[in-house]
This record gives sequence, C-alpha cells and structure tokens, in this order.
Amino acid sequence: MSSRRVACRCRRKQRPRSRHSEAASTASGIGKAGTPPKNRVSLLGDLADIGVLGLATMGANLARNAARKDFNVAVYNRHPGRTEELIREHGSEGRFFPATDIGAFTRSIVRPRPIIIMVKAGKPVDEVIEELLPHLDEGDIIIDGGNSLFTDSSRRFHALKDKGIRFVGMGISGGEEGALEGPSMMPGGEREAYARIEPIVTRMAAQVDGTPCCTFIGPEGAGHYVKMVHNGIEYADMQLIAEAYDLMKSLYGLEAEAIADIFAEWNKGELESYLIEITAAVLRKRDGTGKPLVDSIVDEAEQKGTGRWTAQSALDLGVPLTSITEAVFARALSGSRALRLDAAKALPQPAIPVRAPTQADIDAIRDALYASKIVAYAQGFEQLSAASAQFGWDLHLGDLATIWRGGCIIRARFLNRIREAYSGLDPVPHLLLQDVFREAVVAAEPNWRAVVARAISEGIPVPAFASSIAYFDGFRRGRGPANLLQGLRDYFGAHTYARLDRPGRFHTRWGQDGSEIEV
Amino acid sequence: MSSRRVACRCRRKQRPRSRHSEAASTASGIGKAGTPPKNRVSLLGDLADIGVLGLATMGANLARNAARKDFNVAVYNRHPGRTEELIREHGSEGRFFPATDIGAFTRSIVRPRPIIIMVKAGKPVDEVIEELLPHLDEGDIIIDGGNSLFTDSSRRFHALKDKGIRFVGMGISGGEEGALEGPSMMPGGEREAYARIEPIVTRMAAQVDGTPCCTFIGPEGAGHYVKMVHNGIEYADMQLIAEAYDLMKSLYGLEAEAIADIFAEWNKGELESYLIEITAAVLRKRDGTGKPLVDSIVDEAEQKGTGRWTAQSALDLGVPLTSITEAVFARALSGSRALRLDAAKALPQPAIPVRAPTQADIDAIRDALYASKIVAYAQGFEQLSAASAQFGWDLHLGDLATIWRGGCIIRARFLNRIREAYSGLDPVPHLLLQDVFREAVVAAEPNWRAVVARAISEGIPVPAFASSIAYFDGFRRGRGPANLLQGLRDYFGAHTYARLDRPGRFHTRWGQDGSEIEV
Repeated sequence: MSSRRVACRCRRKQRPRSRHSEAASTASGIGKAGTPPKNRVSLLGDLADIGVLGLATMGANLARNAARKDFNVAVYNRHPGRTEELIREHGSEGRFFPATDIGAFTRSIVRPRPIIIMVKAGKPVDEVIEELLPHLDEGDIIIDGGNSLFTDSSRRFHALKDKGIRFVGMGISGGEEGALEGPSMMPGGEREAYARIEPIVTRMAAQVDGTPCCTFIGPEGAGHYVKMVHNGIEYADMQLIAEAYDLMKSLYGLEAEAIADIFAEWNKGELESYLIEITAAVLRKRDGTGKPLVDSIVDEAEQKGTGRWTAQSALDLGVPLTSITEAVFARALSGSRALRLDAAKALPQPAIPVRAPTQADIDAIRDALYASKIVAYAQGFEQLSAASAQFGWDLHLGDLATIWRGGCIIRARFLNRIREAYSGLDPVPHLLLQDVFREAVVAAEPNWRAVVARAISEGIPVPAFASSIAYFDGFRRGRGPANLLQGLRDYFGAHTYARLDRPGRFHTRWGQDGSEIEV
Repeated sequence: MSSRRVACRCRRKQRPRSRHSEAASTASGIGKAGTPPKNRVSLLGDLADIGVLGLATMGANLARNAARKDFNVAVYNRHPGRTEELIREHGSEGRFFPATDIGAFTRSIVRPRPIIIMVKAGKPVDEVIEELLPHLDEGDIIIDGGNSLFTDSSRRFHALKDKGIRFVGMGISGGEEGALEGPSMMPGGEREAYARIEPIVTRMAAQVDGTPCCTFIGPEGAGHYVKMVHNGIEYADMQLIAEAYDLMKSLYGLEAEAIADIFAEWNKGELESYLIEITAAVLRKRDGTGKPLVDSIVDEAEQKGTGRWTAQSALDLGVPLTSITEAVFARALSGSRALRLDAAKALPQPAIPVRAPTQADIDAIRDALYASKIVAYAQGFEQLSAASAQFGWDLHLGDLATIWRGGCIIRARFLNRIREAYSGLDPVPHLLLQDVFREAVVAAEPNWRAVVARAISEGIPVPAFASSIAYFDGFRRGRGPANLLQGLRDYFGAHTYARLDRPGRFHTRWGQDGSEIEV
C-alpha cells in the first residue's frame, strides 16, 4: 500500500521476496526438532545468529524480519503451538531454528548469545529472565524489546550486570508492520553489548537516506526512556489531529470524506507525517454500511501506559510537559462516556453557528496544529534533555530525531528539522529558540490564537491546542505572575522568596511586625 | 491579626492565655531532667498523654498546641538544644515532659503510647521509626504528622502492624500558625488506634461551628493521600489567583494596591477563602523601599512535591486532573526564568492595548476564577473518589470537605457547598452535576469564555483557566473526537475499537483487504 509509505521516504528497502523464496525448501525442513538445517549465511556454523523468545505478533514479526535479512533466528515460545504456527506459515522466509524447550533454544544460539525477549511488560519480563538465566553463559546478552518502564530496565541492567549477563533495553516503534518491515529501534544498556548486536539490529531497522533508524541510546534504561517519550509525543500528535478534526466537523459541518481530503492535502506540506497520512486513510474509510467508519466508532480512547509514564516522569523532572499531559487526560476524559452523556443532558449545549469554511479557515486550523505540534515536540525534547542530565545518560538529541525519521509512528519530515537543530556546533537550549521553529511559530501565531479563541468561544474543547499556546505565552514572557505565588507561600508557609533588586533569600514577618528579614 | 481569620469563621476558639499563665511556675520546673512535675490534668498519674518527636517549627508548635489544650506532652529531639529552646521559650504554656534520650521519652508516655513524629518526609521517617521500635510495646501508636508520600505510609502501616505497632499517617495542614492554633488534621491507618488518639487530636484541631477539623479518613495511607490532594487543590487555587492577578495587571494596568482592593472585595462573596484573603494582604504589602513588595519578588515559584504527587496519582488512576497539573507545570515553567528571559528577547511580544477596566471587566475575571475553581475542586474530588475505589478505602467525601473548612490553607466558604453535595441521600457522581455548582458554572460561563478567549488573543498565559474550560467543554459533550483516535490506534497498532451501532470489539484489516472483523 503506497499510502503507508509517503511519510517516510525511502523508509524501507523493498524486500526482495523472490530471493527469499529460494530458501523455502530448506526452511521447511526446520520442523524436524533438533536438526537445524545447514547454515547458509552465518560464518559461525550451525548456530543461530540471534534468538527471539516470545512469538506473539510483535515477536514473530521481529523474528521474520531478522530471518528475511538473512540472519539465522532461533525461536521459542512457552506454548509450542505459536512456534509451530510461525514455522508453518512463515518458515519459508528464512532460516529459523525452532525450539520446544528453553535449553535447546539457548544451545542453538552462537555465543555470546543475543536473545530478544518479546513478552508483556512487567512481571512476565522478570519471569522470563529468571527462566533464561540457568541456560546462559557470561557475556550473553538479553535484549528486552517490549514496552518496559525505564526504571525496570535500569534495575534489570544492574541486576544482570552483577551476574555477568549483559542487558539491553530496546524500545521498538512501528507496530506490527514496523516490526516486520523495519521498525525504529532504541537500544540502551551496555555499549559493548550493543556493539555485538549492532550489525543485526541496524539491518533489521528501517532505513532513511541510507541511515538505519537504530542507534545506541545510552546506559541503563535510556532506550526504554526514549521510547516512552516517543510514545508520549505520539499521544500529543494524535490529540492535536483529533482537535483539528473536531473543529472542522463542529465549526464547519464537514463530513469525514471532506476532512480526509484536507488531511491528505496537509500531508503534502510541512505537516507531512505518517499520522497525518493515516488520518486521511481512516477518515476516508467506509465500512459495510457504506457510511464513514469513523462515524460509527465509539468516542472512548484507550491507552496502554507509556503516555502516562511520560507525563509522570516530566513531573518528576520538573519539565512543563503540558501538551502530552493534556493529551493523556483527554483520553481519560473520553473514557467516561456514560458520565459525559449525563453531563450533556444536564448542562446546556452551545448553539454553534455552523457555516461552510473558507480556505483561510482551513489554513488557520492547519497553522494552529503545526504551531501546537512544534510546542509538543519542544517540550518532549526538553524532557529528554532533562532526563539525560538527571540520569547522566549523555543522550544525543539529534540522533533521536534521526532514528525517528523512519519506521516509527511519529515519523515525519519535521524530524529532519529537529535533527538539524541539534547538529550544529552551537546547539539550541530549546527548540522554540531555534530559527526554523521560532519563525514557523511566529508565522502561525495569529491564526493559532484566532483558532483557539474561537474554539473556546464556541465551546469546543481544544485542550492540547490551548495548553500549547498557554505554554508558548508563558515561555516567552520575561515577567510572569509567580511572584505572587511566592508571596503567598511565604505568607502561609514561611517558604521565603528572592528579590529582583538584591541577592539572598527573604522572609516577611507577616503575622508579627511585618518587617522583612534576610534568611 | 483579624485579617487571618475571615475565611474560617469561628475557626479557632480564642485561647485562654490567662488560664495557661498560671501553669508557668509549674512548667518551669520541668527543666530538671527525669523529674516531671505532678500531673495536673491527666487521670493517669505522672505520665504524658502524648509524645512529640521532632521539634522543628511544626513539631514544636504541635507540642505547644497540645500543651495549651491541657494535655501533658512528652517532647524529644535528636539535638537536645531544640528541646531546651522549646522549654525555655514556651515551657510556661502547659505541661511538657522534656527528654534527652529516646528511652526516657517513651517511658514518660502513658501506654498504649501515642507518639507524633514530625521529621522530614522520606528516609528520616523510617530512621526514626527504627530508633523508636526497641522502646515501644505492643499496641503503641506511631503517628506520622509530616508530608509523607501515601505509598510510604501504606508500607509503614503494614510493616508496623506485623510488629504489633499501630501506625497512623496523619496529614496536617495549616502551616506553622495552624499547627499552633489549630490545624486541619487528616489521620489514616487503623481505626482503633485513631479512637485512642481521637480525644487529643480533635481538641488540637481547628473547630468550625463546633465541629473539629479532624476525622478518621481511612486505612493505610489514606490520611496522607487526602492531604496530598488537599495540597494539589491548593496549587490550583493559587495558580488561578495568579492568573486573575496577571490579567488585571496586564490587560488593565492595575497596580498591586488596586488589585488588593479587588481581592478584598471578592473575599466578601462566593470566593471567600483564606487564600483570597491573604492575596489581598500580600498585594497590599509595601516593603522597606515603600513600593509594593510583590513587585520586587522574583517570579519563580517553588514547590515541595505534593502537587506533583497528586498529578502523578491522577495519571495512575486515569482521572483527568487538568487544573492542578497545569498549576504544577506553570510553577515549573516559572522556574526557568533565565530561559524565559532569553525567549522574551527572541520572540516578539504582543502589544496589549491597556485600558482602565470597567466593573464588568473585573466581574468577568471573578467569574472566570470562580468557574475554574469549581472545575479544579470537581476534578480533585473525582480523584479522591477514584482513589477510594481503587484502594478500597471507603473515603467519605463530605467529611473531607467538612474538615477542610477550617485550619487548612484551602479553607473556604465554598467547602460548605461541597459538604452539602455529598451529604444527601443521593450523592452526585460528579460535583459539576450538583445543582449549586452546575448553576454557578452556567451563570459564569459567558464571562469565563470571554476572559479566556481575550487572554489568548492578547498573549497572556492562562493555563489553568484554559485547561479548566477545555475540561468543562469536554465533560459536557456527548460526542467527542476520540473515535478518530481509536481509528488511528486500530490502523497502526491493531488495538481494535467499539462501535456505536452494535456490541463487540472490531478491527479493520487496513493493510489487507480492508474488511472489518469482530475480534
């Protein structure tokens, strides 16, 4: 489907299907347990280059991805049925080494063994690691490719290091399709362990302009941290799209098909991205009833945790991550549909004077979306920068923008600009201060303000648009009202304050003689 | 200072200073270590009714509070100098039992011993508990009166229960003055342990209309949880006040003194509260230079953690807590003053057409503040309700509003209405659906919208006003745009969706034949 590729120019090399079909007869022999077929590519004899443990869709697709790139892949799943299914349906795509017990699985992998585990985040990861440990040798590498919480990855990194096992927490984005065709991969942990797996994972990853969408991120849980923020940005991106859709529908009465056309048009400009592209596809889709599918989908958005974790970490770091957090809360509010329906009955609805839009109306919404998106990314990158400093990870922000250009859900033309912002000799302290983004936001500003003000006047909720502009206004303000907050804090809690006119900390004896003392 | 009392009508009984001065000669004898003076009030002989460990300002003031209410109070501090200072300066206020070692301290308290520990939250609390344990007997009660994280309190509750010691995590609000004169107290833990200390703490607490601002909250860390959300609401209250102040200053060029007059006026109406009252006092204050103090205070707000914890817990619970969270983020952004000053240079400033306000302009800001405040409280109470369900705590929301009417920082006339909302036979599922608040918000709505739209048009950041109105608009909307989010999630991640027209979960085979399947 060409529509799935627009955003990621050259994202994936065309897979040479014909080449792999040759291997079919060989691979089909793999079903005979314990007798892996003769090695065809590896220089290391009859052993697998890598193992994949956990063969649900993501794991199975990653294993197929590696096999299609000519690596020998050991595969194992707790329920052998899954392994059999993979071999039965896709065994012809490359050289698989299926195993029915974990010992046979590990024995079939060349040492030091790289083993990707693809199981549900949380306790299952710890359980699988425990199960693996007796079968591993010093220097073997466990790669957790799931959506683990970064603090879990840091814990596992250190616990396994003490046992002589090397741990790589590797965020993988791109969904099922990406896992198969080439995802964006964010490996963190021990740099030497990464060097061992680099030739494999960089070939499995998406490629953009000849550069793989995979690079070493940093120590401990840095890989999963970066993946988490990626997902947080994805939440904001999607919420901003939903707000633009809502405005076109509610202010101008546009039908899904017409809105699809607008998103398709936007995808030719600065907003070009995978999410804008598939928004057009989703809006255009008609279901069996012949009507737009989207009009029949229940308006309750679900979430799996990474957006929430991103916001929680920002709170810990003291980074004002308003756009992503509002996106997470908007999903939460959408989830209370029964309550919303009650509230819709109890509270009066505004009568919106719907009229056909002009091109300028649509352009204004596009500008609001683009400016808000820049704010969301600027906040996300500020969080990455703060985390890097806090945890001592030395994250290379330009590299992150680079590996997000392809394979992952937020892939976009836009990321090239972020890459450039961090590639100079004099990196900017904040993306909103980088010329390209500063100019873009300033150009969009009048439309952005007008759209948000109009939405609020008409009663259409635009929490992410509104929080982005509030952030922007607070950010470019030399003097805000927090002096009053500090005055109040000193009044009721003796928390003290600083003064503009001289150094030091001060307290006013509010309840006593009202004098000011230096503390 | 009468100005400190307006919000909490009858908040504290006038302390009969003359009565306590009689005790001066007796108490002054306490300095002789090991020879506590003859018991004057307790029926239990020469023993203290309660112990206070940790005599920094909060601890010392709580000890004085108990002593002034005629309880015998054992006091101990790691550094004996603090204990000596308390006795030297305030020993005449009641009967203190000072101790220089922890064993003498515990021996001086009647069994089962109630011991309030007032030390820094975190590790120091665990250290003090470890230190106390060898000196305690089964059934003794450790009361942590600090700002502990509720999960720490839950952990300590269970760990101590296993050792036969009863733990009460007690949130205390009211600052230093409240600790001395009568705070709002939120004790959680074991109900029987609370019954033992109830006669003491309910007398120490603030009183409103004859009702003490102290009641049993719930098991485990429920007391500290409720105190945490109280503080979160305090963050929102203060941010909303700061935004109103900013608008009056930036749109209408009003000086601090004039704004003080407006807040003082507002404090006579529905906004009547301690925070509005002290805002007037802070704005009116002139420092040694003769100019308004607030104009010389640096606009960087600090924070100590409870606001952040509140937002993090809301994210865990899936409660859309936008107002408090924006308030926390606004403080974080204010803290980056150097970056803001750079941004102010790099980004153009709007030219605001400043003009003198009409009464209607000021009323509109008041309405925006009031409606936003209702949203903030509605969200905070929704979080309390969700936490109660999640942790099985059976929180009584009306009781919480009751004990927040006096002693604490957010005390306000307003809380009587919340109390009423939860006191009926048919409690409302959400405060915005309760008649009083629903009508108040609907009445304020036109002004609220106009103020937020104007602020955004003029480039004045109102993150908490704006997020409150976005929440309101999302809340009273039967059909939002989250259907598109679900469509996108199904497209890239096969996350499935529900349909409006029939039950079940569905997935569209986007990348294959485009058909819809039930899953």
